[in-house]
Amino acid sequence: MFNQITILGPGLLGASLLQAAKARGLCKSTAAWSRRAETRAKCKGQPWCDKVYADVRLAVAKADLVVACTPVDTIVPLFEIIGPKLKPGAMVTDVGSTKSLICRHGRAALPKTVKFVGSHPMAGSEKTGLEYATPELFQGRACFVTPLINTPAKDVDKITRFWKALGMEVASTTPEEHDEIVAHLSHLPHLLASAFCAYLGTRNPQWAHYAGPGLRDTTRVAAGDPGLWKAIALENREEILRALDGFQKELDHLRASLHNSQPFALQHILERGRDFRVRLRPLGDKC
Amino acid sequence: MFNQITILGPGLLGASLLQAAKARGLCKSTAAWSRRAETRAKCKGQPWCDKVYADVRLAVAKADLVVACTPVDTIVPLFEIIGPKLKPGAMVTDVGSTKSLICRHGRAALPKTVKFVGSHPMAGSEKTGLEYATPELFQGRACFVTPLINTPAKDVDKITRFWKALGMEVASTTPEEHDEIVAHLSHLPHLLASAFCAYLGTRNPQWAHYAGPGLRDTTRVAAGDPGLWKAIALENREEILRALDGFQKELDHLRASLHNSQPFALQHILERGRDFRVRLRPLGDKC
Repeated sequence: MFNQITILGPGLLGASLLQAAKARGLCKSTAAWSRRAETRAKCKGQPWCDKVYADVRLAVAKADLVVACTPVDTIVPLFEIIGPKLKPGAMVTDVGSTKSLICRHGRAALPKTVKFVGSHPMAGSEKTGLEYATPELFQGRACFVTPLINTPAKDVDKITRFWKALGMEVASTTPEEHDEIVAHLSHLPHLLASAFCAYLGTRNPQWAHYAGPGLRDTTRVAAGDPGLWKAIALENREEILRALDGFQKELDHLRASLHNSQPFALQHILERGRDFRVRLRPLGDKC
Repeated sequence: MFNQITILGPGLLGASLLQAAKARGLCKSTAAWSRRAETRAKCKGQPWCDKVYADVRLAVAKADLVVACTPVDTIVPLFEIIGPKLKPGAMVTDVGSTKSLICRHGRAALPKTVKFVGSHPMAGSEKTGLEYATPELFQGRACFVTPLINTPAKDVDKITRFWKALGMEVASTTPEEHDEIVAHLSHLPHLLASAFCAYLGTRNPQWAHYAGPGLRDTTRVAAGDPGLWKAIALENREEILRALDGFQKELDHLRASLHNSQPFALQHILERGRDFRVRLRPLGDKC
């Protein structure tokens, strides 16, 4: 599908991507760039990583596909640096969790001679780092591709085929639709879990010892990297605030139903919650 | 440890309890009572269930340990029915998720000739029904025992040894302390997940298709039985409302940090959340 794939930022997602692309024969060679010497050292000698670069301009010079897997606030600055070095006709994408700013400013930062379509594979984890990488990370998961209004259809098709070849189910939306959806399905639930854990931390620290499987699952994402999530939340703050306002109304209903001991109102919220929850798409590897 | 154990309500927890007690040789015989003919039929012929009763008074008549595993609002009424039929010296406990009302009214509903200590093994699941029962359900999980001020220490010791023999880590608290702790660690996070899913259900139903593993985990408990959780929430409403008020303050900080684009304030919440989350006790079967 591609001669050379270069990923920028070989963390969990980037390293998994190269492993999966190699395993599925989607490229002839792979390359990775990291700004950190420690990460570059870890990549060297890995079977899924043919070349490792300290200079991002050299890393992308021969690439047919460049995938930016770095924190959301670093993607556009990286595009500005690599732009002049990209091969004409090369495809560029990213895996950032926000899309409006990255797609608009990212397209502007890249030369017209390269193709660009933003992506968001929903396949992260609270774990970070290439140590946790697995070629199965993408299997059965949802992936957004977010073309701009003037992105050629054949470019969208090409990147769609790539994610599908990694086992993903691909949906095409505008960057703005994407940001509204993930504010609801990813960013806000993450922030709620973080705020809930932050609150629990203000209470008796001994309580952490009594946690059952329910609390572990509902708060798992709060173990994620604070710096990464701060950047995501600030980039998508307008959509997240809108979603938070909608949730706050539901929370106020919940509070009133408890405060006034209204069993029917309370049960109605619980039933509506269950009705939505059971409709969530199953994952590839577990239900 | 006991000649006969009788459980009232052979759902996920009750059936798992008999399986575990049999597997670990903690009793000579087992019995189960269910008000539902369908559930009784499922119990008949199961290797972990020696006798099945339709009349709860007959079910407990020969029991040395009776464990009430029915919804929280049915436990005290059941105690009133079985009280006159219990053997002198029999031990009674329950697995209800709330403890203040059950322990106070439950003790009063039982004759002085029987021992009573409330329990709460934190080993549920969003799944209900004996089909999901497993003797490993309790392994490595936390369990509260909640004696009243005048409960004899040897009774507390006996029920503590029982739960430990099932593989649990047991903590002894007052019923009131228990209700405050689980309002924070179980009831409120459950209600937040339900309210969040109820809110998402008011948005585009198509979005359910894009859910990633984060949303699945953070909302798993919202798939639980609305009737059971309504009863739990109303029994523990005062503690839950206090916890909700505390969480609301944290949520207001989060909202302000987003609204005012304050990266340091936002990161501080995320860091405090992570610091608490990583301190949660690991479970027996997974981290």
